[in-house]
Amino acid sequence: MINIIQSRENKIIKTVRSLSRKKGREKSGLYFAEGLRIVRDSVAHIPDEIEFLLASQTFFNNNKDFVKTLDSTGKIVYITEDKFFNEVCDTETPQGIASVIKIPHKKNIDLSCDYILILDGISEPGNMGTIIRTAEAAGVKQICLINNCTDIYNPKTVRSSMGSVFRMSFADIILDDIENLKNSGFTVAATALTNSVAIEDTNIKGKRAIVIGNEAHGVSDAVIGISDISVRINMCGQIESLNAAVAAGIAMYILKPSMEM
Amino acid sequence: MINIIQSRENKIIKTVRSLSRKKGREKSGLYFAEGLRIVRDSVAHIPDEIEFLLASQTFFNNNKDFVKTLDSTGKIVYITEDKFFNEVCDTETPQGIASVIKIPHKKNIDLSCDYILILDGISEPGNMGTIIRTAEAAGVKQICLINNCTDIYNPKTVRSSMGSVFRMSFADIILDDIENLKNSGFTVAATALTNSVAIEDTNIKGKRAIVIGNEAHGVSDAVIGISDISVRINMCGQIESLNAAVAAGIAMYILKPSMEM
Repeated sequence: MINIIQSRENKIIKTVRSLSRKKGREKSGLYFAEGLRIVRDSVAHIPDEIEFLLASQTFFNNNKDFVKTLDSTGKIVYITEDKFFNEVCDTETPQGIASVIKIPHKKNIDLSCDYILILDGISEPGNMGTIIRTAEAAGVKQICLINNCTDIYNPKTVRSSMGSVFRMSFADIILDDIENLKNSGFTVAATALTNSVAIEDTNIKGKRAIVIGNEAHGVSDAVIGISDISVRINMCGQIESLNAAVAAGIAMYILKPSMEM
Repeated sequence: MINIIQSRENKIIKTVRSLSRKKGREKSGLYFAEGLRIVRDSVAHIPDEIEFLLASQTFFNNNKDFVKTLDSTGKIVYITEDKFFNEVCDTETPQGIASVIKIPHKKNIDLSCDYILILDGISEPGNMGTIIRTAEAAGVKQICLINNCTDIYNPKTVRSSMGSVFRMSFADIILDDIENLKNSGFTVAATALTNSVAIEDTNIKGKRAIVIGNEAHGVSDAVIGISDISVRINMCGQIESLNAAVAAGIAMYILKPSMEM
């Protein structure tokens, strides 16, 4: 069904506007994914989770066939003036099409899988999205969040995950869960610059969990304390640190389970 | 020497404003590096290349001792109203201190080193800066640019390189230079999704050059055609591509020369 919204004070517009903040997302249980590609991904992978779609008037005029395919999913497609659409987006040049999606319940920690990524206090939304995308590519089965990571449903995170946020399994965990991982046969490897082994000299067998820390402070002392091993990405030259998403990518690829596992 | 600038029409302000564009940088032979940390890096690593420094009035008032140490380098430190300073920056919240630096001459390709990165049409300034930073960390000795890469002296690139742009050697190259690399004993490995070997199964010995391609189109056909080998970062799940800076980081670390070379 296609509905036209003509007022900025419309309830739908107000709801969507509230989704740029975590508080708004928690209240409504919804998040916002803007852009043609990510909307396509949401329709392909999580059609049942879509609450409704929102398109700008210009997008609708230029893409009537595509909007009809969205309409045929049975979800309501709201059409609104370009200026109202742009106001609810945090990008400078919105594409004019968005999905509003139900926030799924977080999962329990998955002790049966072979490859877990633990994120310890990641704070920058763009890094978080890029890390989620890279984790899916590296074969990570679940991402566990500890110590107040930035919200995975922040619009910037959703966008930079390129749709991976729809497909990845997430769990909120505490220190006890890391103990549980170890008791279930996982090797827990924290990334750390000091008191650590060069990552290329690490030879982990079997199930594993890699810990990536906060952009400024690294992995917390408590998590390093209960990890089985600390690993380090050696750096040449005058470099003091790598970009967090790049470091996570290198660690996840170098430490991923080999095929013959 | 500390000089106060009181007008937006001052020649120094006009020059600095022009450095946000490549044309302005080419005309003056200068580039702009904003932020406390990057200014510190420029004073530490390339003091002779600094043309002058620029500080906002507020930065000056709050950091008089630091500005005195800048003054003691013998360079002119210009102080200007916050609003003029902010106008010449492309960041939303400038820190109030910047170096204006001479653009060095590009080098010739360095056939004597062991590890070269070739960037083929990288277009996004932030990616370029992050790749330069990661290259220094991975032990790359020179970055060679081919097929209209984004300018390495774009302010966003300088900033996201975290100072690596000051220390890295750069060469502009053409296809013939890649032939020269091969004739000089380099193995040239292009990253490519098709007709390629999994990167972890690649065993390159001796001197090597890794090619990273444009964010949307990858490595150009001509460069793939003359490379010795094409390598692929395998991706699980529904992922079609990795972020270019992440992919470059993974490739540079997995293919870097081992210590025993």
